[in-house]
Amino acid sequence: MAHKFFSRRNLDFTLFEVLKVNELTQLDYFKDFDQETFSFTLDTATDIAEKIMHPTYVDSDKKQPELIDGQVKVHQGAHDFLKTFSEAGLIAAPFSKEYGGMQLPKTIAAAGEFIMGCAHNSFVMYTDLTRGAANLIYTFGTPEQKNIFLPKMLSGEWLGTMCLTETQAGSSLSDVATTATPQADGTYKIKGQKIFISAGDHDLTDNIVHLVLARIDGAPKGTKGISLFIVPKKKVSQLVGQSVSRLVQDQPTNRLTDQATNDVTSIGIYHKMGQKATPAMHLEFGAENNCIGYLLGEPHRGLPQMFLMMNGARLGVGLGGIQVASPAYYASLQYAQERPQGRRLDEKIALGAPTTIIHHPDVRRMLLLQKAIVEGGLSLILQCFKYLDLEHNFKMTGSNLNALKTEKNPEFKIQNPKSYYNALLELLTPVAKTYGAEAGFVAVNQGLQVLGGYGYTEDFELEQMLRDVRIMSLYEGTTGIQSQALLGRQVIANQGKSLELWYGEVEEDIIAAKKFENIKPYYNQFNCEIENFKKVTAHLLELAGKGNMEVALADANLYMEAFGILNVAWQWLKQGIESEKGKAPTLEEAIFYDSKRETMMFFFHYEVPKLHGLFTRLTDNMRLTIFNDKNEYEILI
Amino acid sequence: MAHKFFSRRNLDFTLFEVLKVNELTQLDYFKDFDQETFSFTLDTATDIAEKIMHPTYVDSDKKQPELIDGQVKVHQGAHDFLKTFSEAGLIAAPFSKEYGGMQLPKTIAAAGEFIMGCAHNSFVMYTDLTRGAANLIYTFGTPEQKNIFLPKMLSGEWLGTMCLTETQAGSSLSDVATTATPQADGTYKIKGQKIFISAGDHDLTDNIVHLVLARIDGAPKGTKGISLFIVPKKKVSQLVGQSVSRLVQDQPTNRLTDQATNDVTSIGIYHKMGQKATPAMHLEFGAENNCIGYLLGEPHRGLPQMFLMMNGARLGVGLGGIQVASPAYYASLQYAQERPQGRRLDEKIALGAPTTIIHHPDVRRMLLLQKAIVEGGLSLILQCFKYLDLEHNFKMTGSNLNALKTEKNPEFKIQNPKSYYNALLELLTPVAKTYGAEAGFVAVNQGLQVLGGYGYTEDFELEQMLRDVRIMSLYEGTTGIQSQALLGRQVIANQGKSLELWYGEVEEDIIAAKKFENIKPYYNQFNCEIENFKKVTAHLLELAGKGNMEVALADANLYMEAFGILNVAWQWLKQGIESEKGKAPTLEEAIFYDSKRETMMFFFHYEVPKLHGLFTRLTDNMRLTIFNDKNEYEILI
Repeated sequence: MAHKFFSRRNLDFTLFEVLKVNELTQLDYFKDFDQETFSFTLDTATDIAEKIMHPTYVDSDKKQPELIDGQVKVHQGAHDFLKTFSEAGLIAAPFSKEYGGMQLPKTIAAAGEFIMGCAHNSFVMYTDLTRGAANLIYTFGTPEQKNIFLPKMLSGEWLGTMCLTETQAGSSLSDVATTATPQADGTYKIKGQKIFISAGDHDLTDNIVHLVLARIDGAPKGTKGISLFIVPKKKVSQLVGQSVSRLVQDQPTNRLTDQATNDVTSIGIYHKMGQKATPAMHLEFGAENNCIGYLLGEPHRGLPQMFLMMNGARLGVGLGGIQVASPAYYASLQYAQERPQGRRLDEKIALGAPTTIIHHPDVRRMLLLQKAIVEGGLSLILQCFKYLDLEHNFKMTGSNLNALKTEKNPEFKIQNPKSYYNALLELLTPVAKTYGAEAGFVAVNQGLQVLGGYGYTEDFELEQMLRDVRIMSLYEGTTGIQSQALLGRQVIANQGKSLELWYGEVEEDIIAAKKFENIKPYYNQFNCEIENFKKVTAHLLELAGKGNMEVALADANLYMEAFGILNVAWQWLKQGIESEKGKAPTLEEAIFYDSKRETMMFFFHYEVPKLHGLFTRLTDNMRLTIFNDKNEYEILI
Repeated sequence: MAHKFFSRRNLDFTLFEVLKVNELTQLDYFKDFDQETFSFTLDTATDIAEKIMHPTYVDSDKKQPELIDGQVKVHQGAHDFLKTFSEAGLIAAPFSKEYGGMQLPKTIAAAGEFIMGCAHNSFVMYTDLTRGAANLIYTFGTPEQKNIFLPKMLSGEWLGTMCLTETQAGSSLSDVATTATPQADGTYKIKGQKIFISAGDHDLTDNIVHLVLARIDGAPKGTKGISLFIVPKKKVSQLVGQSVSRLVQDQPTNRLTDQATNDVTSIGIYHKMGQKATPAMHLEFGAENNCIGYLLGEPHRGLPQMFLMMNGARLGVGLGGIQVASPAYYASLQYAQERPQGRRLDEKIALGAPTTIIHHPDVRRMLLLQKAIVEGGLSLILQCFKYLDLEHNFKMTGSNLNALKTEKNPEFKIQNPKSYYNALLELLTPVAKTYGAEAGFVAVNQGLQVLGGYGYTEDFELEQMLRDVRIMSLYEGTTGIQSQALLGRQVIANQGKSLELWYGEVEEDIIAAKKFENIKPYYNQFNCEIENFKKVTAHLLELAGKGNMEVALADANLYMEAFGILNVAWQWLKQGIESEKGKAPTLEEAIFYDSKRETMMFFFHYEVPKLHGLFTRLTDNMRLTIFNDKNEYEILI
């Protein structure tokens, strides 16, 4: 490997010192694990990342898949990756033991995925999407559907996709027009086109399990008439009857019926700016009126079902941003350490030998910004995955919170821990997704800049990384959509109640900060900005109370940006505290903790001040982005 | 053409209403021109842009030049462009009549280039670089050198390049190592390698005139030992003697000696993220010790000579950023006008037909940001070109300022107008370059975002535009280098004297703002931020006074960002004033001026508040980016 692409020390620090993920092993659902088994998972991921994935990162970008005669062939590296990943049991790992999984906490699965995504951010799409689709089947499927699809998907024998977007609808899922016509045998005939389907076709597996949003004939208009269907690329014989009674359990099941196609056609492949190793497909279902789908869950409940599972997917995209920003940071760090150019300005002898550029303050600023984003963003996203695990544990075990210490919000948290963590997760998921995507892009862009003209050439990986990372603010709901979700659904619609839980979490976590002289100034700065943020939120709630949601949500993106900075500041405070507490038996460890403290300070001195401008705008009542606010005509010309 | 790529109405408004470029025709050097001839130039540029350039924008990106058997062939579109551009006399236009030019103001030439660069940002590199190289020969060449090279270059028969960068030196030109060994006949043998040479090789012209920085044997170390050489790709016979007496003026001159090579070898071609239609070459001079160069200007004065001419080049790169941002704005505007998706939040009937996305506040915010950057940035850059014309006029004619009205700084401005405009230009050029590059990138990125997932695909030009515009913060000195030049050389080294001239210009220009009720609040806001900026500058001057330049310049990039916002705010105030003054005989004109006022307001309500965070950081004394400030070891890990 040309350069380091992630820091294991930082990952361990984040998981075990900052987020205390070991606490999860005290919970019923995760009780089989300990730190050693967690570490083993991360070691396996590192091994696959280094040996199988990174070596094809550049080549699989240059040789992108093409659609030829209706067939898509993907890079050999993707085949090797899938084989190794599946054989290591990694697709199944976070799933229930019932289906051959290990009940590995999603936090640890995500950490492993982070390692692999740092080495190759496109390949992990195949397995991520499969896990997401399998999770939906696991949650909403009939026993028969689970028995047929889950073993195949969790072993990597069949991969999965999510088919939401349609040409005319885009992010507006209420306008989905794909139809599902009920058949006498309980199945549905699916008809329609879907676009931007990642991993929508390939030659990695025999079959592909599409999860498709469609409307049953006669369904209500809008979001309340959309259902979710399992639509395999090739027919799966024993599902024809769609009834458990007709499934002969003891026969060799789920074999493809003579590889019969299920009338799913690849009619186009998108050529993208980056992430080229994973094809984005334009698919047609039922061109010959012979595409069979199986209803998943309840009719007309497709959207809420899908969204219930989207948190993991959105967190995965946020992590995707950091997965590109991390190797970009280490690549630019290595370049800065090795590249001699110019002299330090405080050097007396102007004509001495050039210094390496890591000594120039502006280069250090660019590197510190990257480091602050990568390590702070990773911390926020893994924090969310921990909430996901907590929520899942309480859902699966129904156990109470005795195992966990609680100080704030004790009543709600103790009485209804599942809802408590779900509320935090709904609030923070759009932020974690957006921060990873947007700040990840900023970080990679700074990495490219550190390399000067070389960064713009294909001689280094930075230009590919910038092309790759650009997708993250578009996947799984754009930044605009996430921001509406945050301010509209998670703040305004519940009158700031989820925020109250968040304030409680933050306070509980950082109460320790006051005790440390090095951290206290930042604790004070943070509290001050939290107070400002509360005022901004109150202002927006008041605006919304006046009834015009369009006005209240007009600057949702800026609210998102501000909340993202606050959340990462929170994570940096936590990291700062743990660095003060950390024992440093060696110089290396002392440097690690010093590095953490300095990066925390950087975030507070360079990033947190951006809140001033954002808060100014968010409390400014001049409306400039509402159509027809003042004029009868369009001023955007 | 698929979409509008620039607004002629806006360009005319900026040139003639805001910047009052017509004033130039009152000056001796430009007295042959009037608005009609200016308009004719812009019409010609539009014609070439639409018919010749834009049709190959995408194709020339996909079929990038390759180096095969030492030869580089470029896209046929580049051949067509060069032929049309040269035949229209556009390379020569801004040059002195003495060499067949028209003495066209550079402001108008730049406006024409802007139009063409909006259609295809790579092709204009060929002619831009040739103009820059020709300008150096024009300014510093011997009569013989001028006679030989200028007619060829200004007619487009030979193109030119600038060869500065070397592998080991990068931006640190004091480390240039290419050597020049004096020969008995007055020529020099050149030996060395240069990298990233834009248009460094191609099959567009018979010969290529490289301007090369090199050290004469025995020259002093550092920047004071670098000389500038004319090094043609193929030998030019009559220059062998390098003496005017040996040039037979009445013979057919400047023919290539049997097309003899001058030992300039293409040893590599860089594959870049974007701007692929112009090859960036790795060149070797004198591999066989047979590369002849001709000293241009004085020995050891290569760098100051080069920098004297770099202002135009830097402004060209800033303009380059806006040249990509402009078509990106119009492409995303058109998409937003045509794309139905979602409903307005204040609509009563949630299930009505989808609205076009231009009605969503967040989309409007992204479009207004693009418009504010494109139109404000263009205004700032053309303002600088006007200063360049004023400086040039007073240099060429020695005339005084009677022709121009003056209110502030009258003494210096009247007594030494050339130095006055030069000082403003040196101050503002790095800002105009950086704003165009950095804000241009931000704008294109927003444009891509407006298109959602489509923006990431090759189905639209946005992804190419984002790849293209990314180079601008690297060309002709990175943002880091420009920021050091601004704060170090133009503010600290002259103790803020140039800034005083700038304050005077700003005040003179916007005194009118107070008279208009609509503008007054922004005039007040602007003045307040100018006062804050003065405090920040005083703080940095004080820091520098304490002797540690490294500390004083550590956050030069943030100072640059702030000064960029202030400068564009200034331009928007000017545009706001002219919009108030503008007569609007038609609804279309009334909408134009309304659109201007709203965009000005947008800039003040959304962009200017960013100064708060920047000023907070710039007056904060915590040092975090100085190496070894606190620790004995490297904390960047």
